Amino acid sequence: MKSVVLQDIIRIGKESVFKLSDTVASEEPLEISIEYGNTANRQLKNISITMRTPGNDRELSAGFLLTEGIINSKKDILEITSDPFDENKITVKLSTEISFDLSKLNRHFYTSSSCGVCGKSSIDAVKTVLPKYDLSQENWMIEPELIRSLPEKLRAAQTIFESTGGLHASALFSKSGELLILKEDVGRHNALDKLIGSALEMELLPLNNQLLLLSGRISFELVQKAAMAGVRVILAIGAPSGLAIRLAEEAGITLCGFIKADRLNLYTVPARVNFAQQSENYESKN
Amino acid sequence: MKSVVLQDIIRIGKESVFKLSDTVASEEPLEISIEYGNTANRQLKNISITMRTPGNDRELSAGFLLTEGIINSKKDILEITSDPFDENKITVKLSTEISFDLSKLNRHFYTSSSCGVCGKSSIDAVKTVLPKYDLSQENWMIEPELIRSLPEKLRAAQTIFESTGGLHASALFSKSGELLILKEDVGRHNALDKLIGSALEMELLPLNNQLLLLSGRISFELVQKAAMAGVRVILAIGAPSGLAIRLAEEAGITLCGFIKADRLNLYTVPARVNFAQQSENYESKN
Repeated sequence: MKSVVLQDIIRIGKESVFKLSDTVASEEPLEISIEYGNTANRQLKNISITMRTPGNDRELSAGFLLTEGIINSKKDILEITSDPFDENKITVKLSTEISFDLSKLNRHFYTSSSCGVCGKSSIDAVKTVLPKYDLSQENWMIEPELIRSLPEKLRAAQTIFESTGGLHASALFSKSGELLILKEDVGRHNALDKLIGSALEMELLPLNNQLLLLSGRISFELVQKAAMAGVRVILAIGAPSGLAIRLAEEAGITLCGFIKADRLNLYTVPARVNFAQQSENYESKN
Repeated sequence: MKSVVLQDIIRIGKESVFKLSDTVASEEPLEISIEYGNTANRQLKNISITMRTPGNDRELSAGFLLTEGIINSKKDILEITSDPFDENKITVKLSTEISFDLSKLNRHFYTSSSCGVCGKSSIDAVKTVLPKYDLSQENWMIEPELIRSLPEKLRAAQTIFESTGGLHASALFSKSGELLILKEDVGRHNALDKLIGSALEMELLPLNNQLLLLSGRISFELVQKAAMAGVRVILAIGAPSGLAIRLAEEAGITLCGFIKADRLNLYTVPARVNFAQQSENYESKN
């Protein structure tokens, strides 16, 4: 499995449009299990599912067990084996000597009730609870200039927290570019939950008529949360992961990333972005 | 509870040192509980503990329940009540009408076995498992110039993934500034677990004789993971949270943030950074 994947994107500049193939970071769930207990009574237990970039899965598993306090040294691990049929499953066989308190294994705990662990099953799980969408019923388009103007508006509104430099922001804008809600948090998922909860209290849901701007990088989890709130357009200042793009595509969400004052990348459902003007300029130049 | 806290820091420039009071983002655990069931049989259940920046806790709780699929609209919530004695606890009382599958509430699940929920108890929980340290037994100091040179070395080594722009990096350097291990991931906690697992396999633990450089912002969780691996010096390109700073202080870890080519902020255990030279220049100028 690769750490980066190729992705077809549309890059919209001030006066140009290019289709190109760009690299994005992979994101896939990894299910970590441990085999433990004395020789007479070995047991197998799933202890974590984490969304990770494939690569160094052995090290990730070993490091996770150490930082969670399950193991202390290399000799506590007998063997680490990847599932030959599923690269997203790994088992760490622990020494019969070590004992630990399973009840302390609380953080990152994620009970796995699904049939498998892969990006596709993660997306399918989300899709079952999503509202249906019908793009043909929509008659709105966003201008790229408007999209490119939003990060600056976000920065201007964020001045209260600017001094800390440590907060992620989620912002909701109207289609005409007015800032409606801005929430901040050390955790990007919290910033988005705060925004969605605020919209819920204001009875604005579903957010299918507004623009969501996120300050950082876009993970699968952020697209999932946005989809649950009915968001149709996600604009990000940072880069999306491969799985975030796939979920956005499946959920009918227009996803833009790397939004700068003079350009942006358009990843999914391009029909909502009006780049005909730039496209004409591009064609007329050639 | 405040979203930002004041923090005494030491700012080390090329030829100057200032002590100043700076603002950092707060980070505290929030325990979200739900009250649910029909009128005859109401039940209370903790469903999540998330590390968040205090503020908009009602919105965070409501948004979390919506994005996790527990509620669909405002009318599903009867009332949201904060614990009058503990600002880190909040309960959402759900309508008697709604039903949901508790077993699907799997992500973010975090069983709370501790006596309370606060930054202090989070730190105490980590401290019980940490190795003891004795600063007086250490006889090494790092030059600020060396620290300031590391982000550029990290960027140079990260070129493989540079194109995606979407990966967090954790790097381990020797005291003299050689890059020993570099790991990347869409999740910053995964990047650090990969590094620590790799160090474990190489039998380098504890990492009390090296420098850990992190590409982004520093949360409580990252300091906790580093502390578990015996790290004594954490260098970050981004900002630390208030709780990250408190844990670093308690764990005897030297924490630097906002590291740039011409300056850095020193938050905790300053004795390991040799800024006497800059300090003299500063004094001689005045």
